[in-house]
Amino acid sequence: MKAEILAALRDAQGYVSGQELCERLGVSRTAVWKGIQKLRAEGYQIKAVSNKGYLLVESPDLLNGEELKSRCKTVWAGREVVYFDVTDSTNIQAKRLAEEGWPHGTLVVAGRQKAGRGRRGRAWESPENTGIFMTLLLRPELLPKQASMLTIVAAMAVAKAVRESCGLAAGIKWPNDIVLNGRKICGILTEMNTEIDTINYVVIGIGINVSNKHFAEDAAAIATSIALEGGKNISRAALIWEVWRQFEAYYDSFCASGNLSGIRQEYNACLVNRNRQVRVLDPKEPFTGIARGIADHGELMVETDQGIEPVSSGEVSVRGLYGYV
Amino acid sequence: MKAEILAALRDAQGYVSGQELCERLGVSRTAVWKGIQKLRAEGYQIKAVSNKGYLLVESPDLLNGEELKSRCKTVWAGREVVYFDVTDSTNIQAKRLAEEGWPHGTLVVAGRQKAGRGRRGRAWESPENTGIFMTLLLRPELLPKQASMLTIVAAMAVAKAVRESCGLAAGIKWPNDIVLNGRKICGILTEMNTEIDTINYVVIGIGINVSNKHFAEDAAAIATSIALEGGKNISRAALIWEVWRQFEAYYDSFCASGNLSGIRQEYNACLVNRNRQVRVLDPKEPFTGIARGIADHGELMVETDQGIEPVSSGEVSVRGLYGYV
Repeated sequence: MKAEILAALRDAQGYVSGQELCERLGVSRTAVWKGIQKLRAEGYQIKAVSNKGYLLVESPDLLNGEELKSRCKTVWAGREVVYFDVTDSTNIQAKRLAEEGWPHGTLVVAGRQKAGRGRRGRAWESPENTGIFMTLLLRPELLPKQASMLTIVAAMAVAKAVRESCGLAAGIKWPNDIVLNGRKICGILTEMNTEIDTINYVVIGIGINVSNKHFAEDAAAIATSIALEGGKNISRAALIWEVWRQFEAYYDSFCASGNLSGIRQEYNACLVNRNRQVRVLDPKEPFTGIARGIADHGELMVETDQGIEPVSSGEVSVRGLYGYV
Repeated sequence: MKAEILAALRDAQGYVSGQELCERLGVSRTAVWKGIQKLRAEGYQIKAVSNKGYLLVESPDLLNGEELKSRCKTVWAGREVVYFDVTDSTNIQAKRLAEEGWPHGTLVVAGRQKAGRGRRGRAWESPENTGIFMTLLLRPELLPKQASMLTIVAAMAVAKAVRESCGLAAGIKWPNDIVLNGRKICGILTEMNTEIDTINYVVIGIGINVSNKHFAEDAAAIATSIALEGGKNISRAALIWEVWRQFEAYYDSFCASGNLSGIRQEYNACLVNRNRQVRVLDPKEPFTGIARGIADHGELMVETDQGIEPVSSGEVSVRGLYGYV
């Protein structure tokens, strides 16, 4: 009920009358009034004027089931939302839901994570009310070897959402870190369950530093937040849906071609390593070259004296020669 | 305590005295006697003769934690055993334990499965006390693309164990079904959790039809059991450990070379499709050829007029032209 009232207030071009709310939701004026009171108690500023009705003046940066559902603006990504105030990690919960049969497009969001982590088991700071911690469950018709492209699709969606919603020139560090001024604001952890030859499901975990004011000492040199970089104030719920709205568009393009040809150009334009010297930590023989951007399947093309070398994620690490990126 | 008494009785070359049991286990004669009584209540036939001691005459085909632990004869595979009388499926439980951090080598065994399944979600009949339903958790240092070889290693281990323990000429239908006289006695379901480039864990689920006397109508044409094929009577617990003993040896060979070169010849000798016509259901263009055996990375080499075509599991299905294999 609260979610429906919120959505109606947001849709309105100004005041919405109590009568209109009653009709739209099929409930009594008393029920509408009670819903409004509950929303006010949660921090929403809702003005009530006789003969005009209700006006949503300001929303707190709340993250909960109602807030999320009332703001949904996607077709399928997040059609089921599972929200936790606190959980171990949204990837762990999404994998659990996947095993229980939850559908393609299920979105898990948490207010705080107790065991958030990044790639290769690295810890990911997940303090309360400062960041976005979420995981989307996908059941794509792909071969396991194609799934690495999904993480590129997700990185592109986050970069675009941050650029458009926060007015910041978010860049991408290949393959899937989002950076601002050389420091990381977003990490993506893609995991999948496969049989030998087929994907059962993929979970894409995304952590975004939104309003963090400081980081622990070891993280401070490599991490930043949207707030610290002076980004436009945006509620986490709004940014969450902007990410998935962008994701749906890029995902459609990816599914139509089966590769990244429709995304590559835009991705490469965001790539902070592009046309810069990188060191490829190939376990066999490390080498240095100039990063030229990704190819259609997500490999980083590195130019050396011997020609262009395609580099796959994970068999190698890529580091810029100067600083974090 | 029961497990230790059982192990001591099995180790003995004949009678073992009560005094010896007391000393070995560090308990009183009364405690030993109580343990013997409990084992008898479970169906073990244990003879007791004055001045000689105890003799294990016959073991029932029991499957439980004590029985399994008392029979262990592996180095690392099954060093932790988690037993369920009934569970949904041993793969589901093994994945759950993996997420909780259980170690490489953890073995999950069930007396019965309520939701057993084979590859691509096909159901797997899992009636009580007739079969082996088990899953081994591995945390191998492999790339995701190398993991398909593990299922070949497991298939080889089951075929060898059935041959040696039951005296039956078990064959392999590529990649990982074990067959007797053209019907299936064992299916293997390998699943893994990976990040884009690294394996977090692999679970290898193995279902073996041991003493089934009949199958449901739709399964009867393609399934059989060790008992129906006249195999030597073997307890399920003994066969379980024989499988993992063989697995450890093949796994060592696999890890040493990083491929199947040390196993290939023996595997190909068991391959029922070998030198027979097969139809490769390649989604692009199905074709027919002669199966010549696997290559070092597990691909089936199919000879056609155009030459040898390597076939990867999953992108295609392979069917014999006549009957199930």
